[in-house]
Amino acid sequence: MDYETPQFYRVIQYARRADRDVVDMVSGSPDWDPPEGLREGLREYADLGADEFQYTASAGLPELRTEIAERRGVDRDCIVVTNGAGEANHLAMVGGLERFSGDEILLADPVYPYYAGRANFVGADVGFVPVDDDGHLTPERVREAASEETAVVVVNSPNNPTGAVYDEAAMAEFVAIAEENDALLISDEVYDHFDYTGRFASALQFDSPNVVATNAFSKSMAITGFRVGYAVFPPADGPTGELLERARTRHMIVNVTGSRPAQYAVYRALETTGPDYYAENRDRLQGRIDTFCEALDAVGAEYDRPEGGFYVMGRFEGFPGTFENVFELVDEAGVAGMPGEAFGESRREWIRFALVTPTVDEAAERLVEYF
Amino acid sequence: MDYETPQFYRVIQYARRADRDVVDMVSGSPDWDPPEGLREGLREYADLGADEFQYTASAGLPELRTEIAERRGVDRDCIVVTNGAGEANHLAMVGGLERFSGDEILLADPVYPYYAGRANFVGADVGFVPVDDDGHLTPERVREAASEETAVVVVNSPNNPTGAVYDEAAMAEFVAIAEENDALLISDEVYDHFDYTGRFASALQFDSPNVVATNAFSKSMAITGFRVGYAVFPPADGPTGELLERARTRHMIVNVTGSRPAQYAVYRALETTGPDYYAENRDRLQGRIDTFCEALDAVGAEYDRPEGGFYVMGRFEGFPGTFENVFELVDEAGVAGMPGEAFGESRREWIRFALVTPTVDEAAERLVEYF
Repeated sequence: MDYETPQFYRVIQYARRADRDVVDMVSGSPDWDPPEGLREGLREYADLGADEFQYTASAGLPELRTEIAERRGVDRDCIVVTNGAGEANHLAMVGGLERFSGDEILLADPVYPYYAGRANFVGADVGFVPVDDDGHLTPERVREAASEETAVVVVNSPNNPTGAVYDEAAMAEFVAIAEENDALLISDEVYDHFDYTGRFASALQFDSPNVVATNAFSKSMAITGFRVGYAVFPPADGPTGELLERARTRHMIVNVTGSRPAQYAVYRALETTGPDYYAENRDRLQGRIDTFCEALDAVGAEYDRPEGGFYVMGRFEGFPGTFENVFELVDEAGVAGMPGEAFGESRREWIRFALVTPTVDEAAERLVEYF
Repeated sequence: MDYETPQFYRVIQYARRADRDVVDMVSGSPDWDPPEGLREGLREYADLGADEFQYTASAGLPELRTEIAERRGVDRDCIVVTNGAGEANHLAMVGGLERFSGDEILLADPVYPYYAGRANFVGADVGFVPVDDDGHLTPERVREAASEETAVVVVNSPNNPTGAVYDEAAMAEFVAIAEENDALLISDEVYDHFDYTGRFASALQFDSPNVVATNAFSKSMAITGFRVGYAVFPPADGPTGELLERARTRHMIVNVTGSRPAQYAVYRALETTGPDYYAENRDRLQGRIDTFCEALDAVGAEYDRPEGGFYVMGRFEGFPGTFENVFELVDEAGVAGMPGEAFGESRREWIRFALVTPTVDEAAERLVEYF
C-alpha cells in the first residue's frame, strides 16, 4: 500500500459499477455546505482589482496568516500557509528527517494511508505503533518504539480512522517523547473542530522546539477542494529554527505560493463565521454517530464510539475487513466502506465507515438487514 | 543567488522605502485585467453545490484537462495540472534527474533565477550556457555544453529575461540535443501568448519522448496568484513513461491536488475568452515596448527589442547592472528595474525592465532625463 487515493478509488469505482444504489461511506469529503461567508468571500474576490489576482506572499496571504496566528495564539511568522494539510504534513515530515538524527518515521497502526505513502516516498524507514484496544496510541507504546533512529513521530487527533482524541496528558507525553529522542512530533489536527469529548489538546500549547502542528480548513469549512492548510513551526530564532526556514524555501521552490482566491475566501469566512456553524456540523455528525452505532449494536458488531472526527470502525464476527468483503457489502448490502486492511495490520478485521453522507440511517438499516 | 523572490524583494522593498514615487518595473505580474469569463467563472463556482467544493482529481479538474488537451493537441492523460508553472517545472526537473543519466541541469545565462534556485535545491550540478549577443541560446552552444553528464536542458521561449523567441528550427535542434544526450528537454512556454514574431514553436510539436512542456495561465490570463499551470509529459506507455507516473505520484504526495475554484475559473475562462483578449494584451505590450525602446535609443543604450514576453534588457554605458546602480536609479530617476547580476554572469552589465505597469511612458521619460 503506497498512498490512499488509489485504494479509495478501488472501492469507489467498484461501488459506481454496482448494479444497485450504494451509500458511499468511503471518502472523507464533507457532504454539508461551506459557511455562507466563504461563498461570499469568493464573490467579493471576483470583483477585486487586477492586482489582487497576482502572487500573494509565498508564506500565505498576510491577512489570513494574521487570522490564523490570533486563533492559534502563535507568532504569525511561524505559520506557512500550504496547499492543504497534505503539503503541510509533507513539509513537516521532510523537514523533520533533515533536521533530526535518525531516518525513521513512527506512525500509528491503523494508519491514515497518506502518511505511510509520503514516508515511503521520501525514503524514510517507517515504524508502526499499534493502537490499543480502544483505538488510542498510548504514550507507553510510543515511548517503547522510539529510539535514536526516530526522526519523526506523527500523531493525528481527532484520529482518522479510529476516532481517538488525545487529551492534554497524552499530548504532553508525545511531546516529551519527541524531545527525549531528538525527534520531531508532527501533530495533525485537521479534525480539531470535530472533538466530541471536550478534551482535545493541541500540541501547540506545549510550545516545544520539537513540535510542528499541521491543520487545514478542508474539514472544518467543508472545502477539501480548496487546498488551504497550514503548518505552525517553532520560531526561526529558536534551537530548531531551520525547520521553518527550510519549509519556507521548499514551499517556494515547489509551489511558489498557494492559490489566492481560495486563501481570500477562507480569510473572509474566518472573519464572518460564528461558532454556530461549527457546532451545527458537530451536532449533525453526532446524530449520525448515534444512528450508526445503534445499528452496529443491533447486529452485535464490535466498535469504539468515536471521540472525534468523521469515521466509525466496526468489526463484524466472521467478516474481516478485506477488499473482498467490502465488495460483497457493496453488492449485497448497498453500503461501501473502507477495508481495515487498507490501514495496516492491527485493524485487518475491521471496516471503516465515513459518516459524510446524509443517508447514514439508510446505510444503518441496510447493514442491520444484511448481518 | 539561490532563487528569485528574495532578490525581487530586495529591490521592491528598497523602492517602497524610497522618498519619492517610483515606477515599479521589477516583478513579472501583469497589471491588466483577467478575462471577464474568469471573474464570471468564480462567481458561478461560488453558487455550486457542496460536492463541487471537495477534492477534484489529483491530476486536475477533468474538464480543464480536456480543454488543455484539445488546445495543445495532446492526449489528456499526459497532462498534470499543477500549482502554477512553478510546480510543473519542479516536477519536470526532478523527474528528468531521476530518469536520465547524469546529474547536470543546463540552463541559459542570463537565467530566470527560479530555475537555478530549484536546480540547486534538488542537488543538481548546474551548467550555464551563455546566450549570444542578441539574447538567444544557440543550438551550437547548447550542443557543445551537453554531455553524458547532462540529465536536463531547460529552455524558455519567449524568454525571461532576454525576450528571445525560438523558432521551429531552433526548437528542433534543442529536442535533438536532448535525444542525443539521453536527457530531458524542459520547454517552459509560459509566455507563449506573448510572441511578437509569429515564429514561436512549441516543443510539443516534435512529439519526442525526451520532452516535457510546461505552461500556466498566470501570464496569459493575468492571474499569477491563482496558481494554475500544467506539464505535458510523454505518454505513459512510451519509453519514458515513468516520467508521467512519477510526476503524478509526486504531485499527489506533496499537494494531493490543486485548488479547485481556481481551476474551475480558468476552465470557464478558456471556454468563454476569444482571441481578442490575448491580442489586446499583446498589442498593449507592443505599444509599451515601442515607447520604452525609443527612450533607450534616445539615451544611446544598447538593447535587443524583445521578440516576446514582458521584459526589455538595456545596457547603459558606464552604468553596469549592479544592485548599487539599480538602487541609484530608484533614488535618482524614480524607476526600479532588476540588476543584470541577479540573472548570472553574461548580462552583468545590463538592467531588466518589466513592462507590466501602465506608466511605461513616465518611466521612459525619467530614464531619458536621468541618463
